[in-house]
Amino acid sequence: MASRDVYGAVEGGGTKFVCMIGTSPTDVVDEVTIPTTGPAETIGEVIEFLQRPRPGIRLVAIGVATFGPIDLDPTSSTYGCVLKTTKEEWSGARILAPIARRLGVPVGWDTDVNGAVLGEARWGAAQGIDPVLYLTVGTGIGGGALVNGATIHGLLHPEMGHIAVPAVPGDSFPGICTFHGRCLEGIASGPALAARCGRPVPEIPPDDPVWDLEARYLAHGIRSLILTLSPRRVVLSGGVMRQAHLLPRVRRALVEVLNGYIDLPELKDRIDEYVVLSKLDQKAGLYGALVLAERASPRTG
Amino acid sequence: MASRDVYGAVEGGGTKFVCMIGTSPTDVVDEVTIPTTGPAETIGEVIEFLQRPRPGIRLVAIGVATFGPIDLDPTSSTYGCVLKTTKEEWSGARILAPIARRLGVPVGWDTDVNGAVLGEARWGAAQGIDPVLYLTVGTGIGGGALVNGATIHGLLHPEMGHIAVPAVPGDSFPGICTFHGRCLEGIASGPALAARCGRPVPEIPPDDPVWDLEARYLAHGIRSLILTLSPRRVVLSGGVMRQAHLLPRVRRALVEVLNGYIDLPELKDRIDEYVVLSKLDQKAGLYGALVLAERASPRTG
Repeated sequence: MASRDVYGAVEGGGTKFVCMIGTSPTDVVDEVTIPTTGPAETIGEVIEFLQRPRPGIRLVAIGVATFGPIDLDPTSSTYGCVLKTTKEEWSGARILAPIARRLGVPVGWDTDVNGAVLGEARWGAAQGIDPVLYLTVGTGIGGGALVNGATIHGLLHPEMGHIAVPAVPGDSFPGICTFHGRCLEGIASGPALAARCGRPVPEIPPDDPVWDLEARYLAHGIRSLILTLSPRRVVLSGGVMRQAHLLPRVRRALVEVLNGYIDLPELKDRIDEYVVLSKLDQKAGLYGALVLAERASPRTG
Repeated sequence: MASRDVYGAVEGGGTKFVCMIGTSPTDVVDEVTIPTTGPAETIGEVIEFLQRPRPGIRLVAIGVATFGPIDLDPTSSTYGCVLKTTKEEWSGARILAPIARRLGVPVGWDTDVNGAVLGEARWGAAQGIDPVLYLTVGTGIGGGALVNGATIHGLLHPEMGHIAVPAVPGDSFPGICTFHGRCLEGIASGPALAARCGRPVPEIPPDDPVWDLEARYLAHGIRSLILTLSPRRVVLSGGVMRQAHLLPRVRRALVEVLNGYIDLPELKDRIDEYVVLSKLDQKAGLYGALVLAERASPRTG
């Protein structure tokens, strides 16, 4: 019997690496979750999973979407490595090279949030749409964008969580970003919200006025991202957005802070179709890694 | 004698439309400047210039880069038109259709700043580079970006001048943007600077401390744009940037507000190569229109 061509997908996160073998969210041959420890051990386990003999299956390409910052420049000597990060053991860790060498197939590579936007644009909340902005609001705030058919690889990759937001009048909370204090992540991430309220995010009641403040800061950030990238859809995800009452507040605040400047229904009456929640949720990066594998594959690339 | 194929390029501005016939900045067959009056009259004169008989020359495509907001969506009923603008007579004006109909050749179409980034990436300060951010600081603040080989056409087009910037501590100037007060354009455009100082920008002496404030606001805006688009080069232009002392201040302030977050030499020691002035200056949009014509041409498109 001829073997079937499949992809390997790896989503690397700060606490776990999720790996799968398959071709789409509805064709999953195998899947595993590996705890994130040190790079040698974790990447070793990822390779072991990908190498496992599976009769009737041929792995033709792999995609990796991982936490960063990472080096995406193929001409760089540190291409495929994690750059300097607060997760010290991972600073400089080689991820792409060992996987490519041991598996002997092409490996596509991007950030977790760039992977997520590819996943959402293929199977999730922004199917067939371009440009798309994906923003996750959780332990940190991270953004990915699909623009002109691909994610953005430039000097580095987008680090949208660290854009500036104006202070809401009367709010003196200094923010928690060690680099920028009150940048978007410093003022509106889960840990920022918890620090402001003195308790974990899930324990903040839905009627606490802090949620309107949170929505206002997120709206300020999203406004700047919309005015820069002009996305046709904004996809939100992450632990903080799981508070069901937050999305409607963010939409209302966004319409307010845009203040009618862009005269389009998507930013007024149709805001509910324009700013949406992720459909793939925690699988967005993993399925995005599948898209990266597909794009790296010599058959489709 | 066989005729030579050339392009028509049109840059539409608030005070003048500049048109040329040629193929590159060093191959200009003809050029004209037409004052911006009403759309019928101005576009009529543009068409008259483009139609003029020129022996030995064949016009094969036209590019138009113009002030906006404009409709760039080919599936829209108002494609090729100016959208609602403060320049009332031009709201809804059809630009692309009459030119295409009268000339009978393909017409490429984009904003003035998107045109400018295409021009700079082809013949100017960012040759062969992608992604590129172009930001003009003058009567308004406008940004264009080249990402993955093309400019950004999304829900609309980038309107980077209206992104949020945080207040510099101690600065109570309310900004002049009628939509957002203290957005980037509201606080750092030429008219904002003039309103703050009570005199025209050219009359503000170089040693006035306001220039450091101006540099700080521009740096805040550029920081957010860099963190979103990850450009490999930032090209600045416009009337305010013509103050020769301003660029070094902006570079210094940018390094300060990034605060080492992105650990790359371009944002530290090599900032002088990373943030540069436009090379094409006031011709950037016109030459960009030439690129738009080339891309619209059936021979190269």
